[in-house]
Amino acid sequence: MQVGGEAEATRMAHGVVLAASGDRLGAVASSTTARLLAASPDRPGIIAAVTAFVAGHGGNIIDLQQHTDRGESAFFLRVEVDLADLDLPREKIAPAFAPVAERFAMRWRLGFSDHRPRVGLLASREPHCVHDLLHRWRGGELAIEVPVLISNHADHAAAAEWFGVEHHHLPIVDGDKAGQEARVREVLRAHGIELVVLARYMQVLSPELCDEWAGRIINIHHSFLPSFQGARPYHQAHERGVKLIGVTAHYATAALDDGPIIDQDVIRVSHRDDVHDLRRKGRDLETTVLARAVRAHVDDRTLIYGRRTVVFD
Amino acid sequence: MQVGGEAEATRMAHGVVLAASGDRLGAVASSTTARLLAASPDRPGIIAAVTAFVAGHGGNIIDLQQHTDRGESAFFLRVEVDLADLDLPREKIAPAFAPVAERFAMRWRLGFSDHRPRVGLLASREPHCVHDLLHRWRGGELAIEVPVLISNHADHAAAAEWFGVEHHHLPIVDGDKAGQEARVREVLRAHGIELVVLARYMQVLSPELCDEWAGRIINIHHSFLPSFQGARPYHQAHERGVKLIGVTAHYATAALDDGPIIDQDVIRVSHRDDVHDLRRKGRDLETTVLARAVRAHVDDRTLIYGRRTVVFD
Amino acid sequence: MQVGGEAEATRMAHGVVLAASGDRLGAVASSTTARLLAASPDRPGIIAAVTAFVAGHGGNIIDLQQHTDRGESAFFLRVEVDLADLDLPREKIAPAFAPVAERFAMRWRLGFSDHRPRVGLLASREPHCVHDLLHRWRGGELAIEVPVLISNHADHAAAAEWFGVEHHHLPIVDGDKAGQEARVREVLRAHGIELVVLARYMQVLSPELCDEWAGRIINIHHSFLPSFQGARPYHQAHERGVKLIGVTAHYATAALDDGPIIDQDVIRVSHRDDVHDLRRKGRDLETTVLARAVRAHVDDRTLIYGRRTVVFD
Amino acid sequence: MQVGGEAEATRMAHGVVLAASGDRLGAVASSTTARLLAASPDRPGIIAAVTAFVAGHGGNIIDLQQHTDRGESAFFLRVEVDLADLDLPREKIAPAFAPVAERFAMRWRLGFSDHRPRVGLLASREPHCVHDLLHRWRGGELAIEVPVLISNHADHAAAAEWFGVEHHHLPIVDGDKAGQEARVREVLRAHGIELVVLARYMQVLSPELCDEWAGRIINIHHSFLPSFQGARPYHQAHERGVKLIGVTAHYATAALDDGPIIDQDVIRVSHRDDVHDLRRKGRDLETTVLARAVRAHVDDRTLIYGRRTVVFD
Repeated sequence: MQVGGEAEATRMAHGVVLAASGDRLGAVASSTTARLLAASPDRPGIIAAVTAFVAGHGGNIIDLQQHTDRGESAFFLRVEVDLADLDLPREKIAPAFAPVAERFAMRWRLGFSDHRPRVGLLASREPHCVHDLLHRWRGGELAIEVPVLISNHADHAAAAEWFGVEHHHLPIVDGDKAGQEARVREVLRAHGIELVVLARYMQVLSPELCDEWAGRIINIHHSFLPSFQGARPYHQAHERGVKLIGVTAHYATAALDDGPIIDQDVIRVSHRDDVHDLRRKGRDLETTVLARAVRAHVDDRTLIYGRRTVVFD
Repeated sequence: MQVGGEAEATRMAHGVVLAASGDRLGAVASSTTARLLAASPDRPGIIAAVTAFVAGHGGNIIDLQQHTDRGESAFFLRVEVDLADLDLPREKIAPAFAPVAERFAMRWRLGFSDHRPRVGLLASREPHCVHDLLHRWRGGELAIEVPVLISNHADHAAAAEWFGVEHHHLPIVDGDKAGQEARVREVLRAHGIELVVLARYMQVLSPELCDEWAGRIINIHHSFLPSFQGARPYHQAHERGVKLIGVTAHYATAALDDGPIIDQDVIRVSHRDDVHDLRRKGRDLETTVLARAVRAHVDDRTLIYGRRTVVFD
Repeated sequence: MQVGGEAEATRMAHGVVLAASGDRLGAVASSTTARLLAASPDRPGIIAAVTAFVAGHGGNIIDLQQHTDRGESAFFLRVEVDLADLDLPREKIAPAFAPVAERFAMRWRLGFSDHRPRVGLLASREPHCVHDLLHRWRGGELAIEVPVLISNHADHAAAAEWFGVEHHHLPIVDGDKAGQEARVREVLRAHGIELVVLARYMQVLSPELCDEWAGRIINIHHSFLPSFQGARPYHQAHERGVKLIGVTAHYATAALDDGPIIDQDVIRVSHRDDVHDLRRKGRDLETTVLARAVRAHVDDRTLIYGRRTVVFD
Repeated sequence: MQVGGEAEATRMAHGVVLAASGDRLGAVASSTTARLLAASPDRPGIIAAVTAFVAGHGGNIIDLQQHTDRGESAFFLRVEVDLADLDLPREKIAPAFAPVAERFAMRWRLGFSDHRPRVGLLASREPHCVHDLLHRWRGGELAIEVPVLISNHADHAAAAEWFGVEHHHLPIVDGDKAGQEARVREVLRAHGIELVVLARYMQVLSPELCDEWAGRIINIHHSFLPSFQGARPYHQAHERGVKLIGVTAHYATAALDDGPIIDQDVIRVSHRDDVHDLRRKGRDLETTVLARAVRAHVDDRTLIYGRRTVVFD
């Protein structure tokens, strides 16, 4: 055990106080950064042009990561710039940068570290991922806002209330999946949701919803994809007798369990573990891998690239 | 995502409903088992004698694990027996078994799978281990009762209330550590606590308390012991430039951070991670490793053996 | 670095001296053990009967592991007995034990720790698994004999000579796979091979060969099965964009890449890794996982059980 | 098993043919790159200046990694540039770059991907790390030359001959460590050695040797440093009852086992593992972690930074 080193307290919704975790969020609060994510055909001079743009406006680059896929001649870049010394107000950065982007035919996006994206959680019965994400948000570990939690079951009402999240119980009535999904979309829209997290949501989304929200829905699948796609992956894993089980966080696409993978992890199992043990061991993986994937997205570290992702460290 | 396979709901304290996780707890509820843990000098015939005792009373062994430390001629055994077919009522098992134990000079103990030990949580400011354990308890994953949560800070009152746990805020006043510890012991006694879990409790316990509760206090230390004992292990790890950080769950002893290790785990870090990142990454390890250690203890899988433990799978 | 603790030397074939690793092999050489592996329908009294048999003959059990699959009411047992005190000569153990086995309808087998099974290696071009196994054998880590190495390419002749192994270059001529396989079987038979190890052998075995050698062929597949069965798994993994790659050691069956899994492991990869990197990272996994699987088999720790295995620790 | 995808053969020293692994080495052989490693105080404009220099000479950056330690205001950079399009011959790059380096007070170095550093191996009795490195070199996985292997024991002569490496048996005679070390230095000098790898060399190097070769000696220590420094770390680990054991590759410094860490890894152990098992399990870690560290150094990915390292991916 340890003396000292305890963390600061922070006030939470509904008068509830959680002791905060004194993590990076607070540590860099005073120093807002802009983050450029860009993909383009590979060509000499891209980094020089981007960094000259930053330097020309007095900016200090605090993190730059670049990746070239030589097989496909594709170039990927993430640049994080301290706004403190930049001679451009934040709303002028994108217009000023646009000509550079155009010159290199970039697909690009600009984010700011003090922007907390509005996340809509979708869940079914399993509570662990929902609670974990809400706890990380309220403890200050994830720089998000979670205005709303939607479930096709009623189980999460009390937790939603405690965490200060609006709860919508949207069951599928008389098999009307399209109707339920329409209500889900409405709620997401009403709350200005920017990122949907499927925190063990057990309904297949329509291709239309997946397309509309392309690159903005993160799902956790409880298998080491592409193994055990579809239903009951822990049963499949037990049946096959694997010696490790895994989970996969990925962007949802119209092709079920086939979207670009953001993160994966595994845990060792043995003949001693029955399906219940696999589910129990898997839950811890599910929460941590989903949280890592959400964090990577929120920190503007992910670029989708065909069926794959670039996830900068 | 997945269709079907959703879990059952279970009712929680204070009218709050958590969707349960359908784990092993429920799965074996109908089949209570007795668990014998024994250590003795190694000698031929021990297993034969124990299993003959079980068979002689009509019992079915559903799990038996044995370990012989040949260097020290020490023998360790865990036997789990289905009570259904045993021709002894549970209170008669120990007296009937005593002669066998005596014959082999065993140190032994008998537990029952339907006994939920009363756990007292001690915490300081960090909330993640407390919440994680309470959530696993309420979700049905850990077969424990948690009647009381003691903290030397006030931060956990709301969480305690929500989870339905009595909360005692016992700060150290005017440096009177002995006085505070006396109050802690009183509360533990009043609640009939059988296992104390230091869920990131940042006060050093007195040797007297450690001795009184020997083998019944589990601590989580946020380093890969024996590296970085004492204060601020994540700072020490960062300073040393290690490429993996770890955590250690161990039984508390009078020698600080030196008790028998129950479980450990690590996570990869790099030069990109500052101390805040180490703390964030470490938190996930702390919760999972502490929960695994508590589970091993509660399932009667741990035997202390000098400075070491035998932890049956 | 470290002072002292250096290992003993041991003399190798062909006058070559490898410094030995001072491992367990030497350490227990003086104490031969018998190992019983048994599977049967679950019933009360099996362990009692087996251990009474051992105790009745004066034997000391130095390791016993048991597993019950409650879903399928199947019982699995591994018992290791020191031969020193047993009042039966080793050739009388099986006949004496047979009635016990019969009583419980056991599928069983008896092995001895001083028996070094004769292993036939099959390889194609990649050398890493072949060299690794030969090195572990010659260094005393694996209790095997390797009289012969068969390859459908000529690349391993020099290595075979150096390690003192007979080498057969058996290419497939004019597409005559059946003819080549017939010659392979002949060589295996001529050398009294007991276990075949496919050390990156890139030819599909015929169902007949798999059946004839059922439970006695170990293959290493360079993917985390059941993902990426078939050809070019690293290419498949790269194409899919997984964040971990894995390997699988399994018993070969007529169904390609579908045999009972003995061991698996994974390593983290990222968008920075191209197919060449995956192959390089995978090679280290392939050698260690294949060696672990061979070791488990040779130590009589594996039981095949439908499509699955029980692998005792 | 797998059809197709087999690798090319490559001819090895002394007429011995190893099937090559078709790894990255060959894949990029046609495209030589220059690699700049630089550390400096953090200041705006460094990346812009460096990349403008490259672009100004027509160069294409194929990999750029940067790290800022904000706590210490230190800046680290690795840039890899394709030489194909650069308008400078390679010997003119450093002089041309020097003014940029000076402007930012850089500590820097320039390497070329087709330069294979001359590595001197030092070993004692254990053969596994020596063989592993020689095998990776001969198989084309490590871009090094290994002209000489020095050992204080005679065990490696045959292996050295087979791999085509000059072998020096330099024992410590009559306790004259200084004399032996003088001979070691002489041999290193005679062979133009650029990097010394202590492949389980069990003698403590003198502070003078460590200083002379600062940043150019890589050692593998068989514990998870800083745990278990000094002698017999596996014995120490067993005694302490840890649940994971580890190894550490680090640059050697005058302070024993305290040099900057390059890489570490761990493996799970249990009460079932005695010291022999720990040594066996540890060996696989030692070979892979040492090889990864050598590879990182050889690929110009490591920067020493006080007691720590920056290791670019």
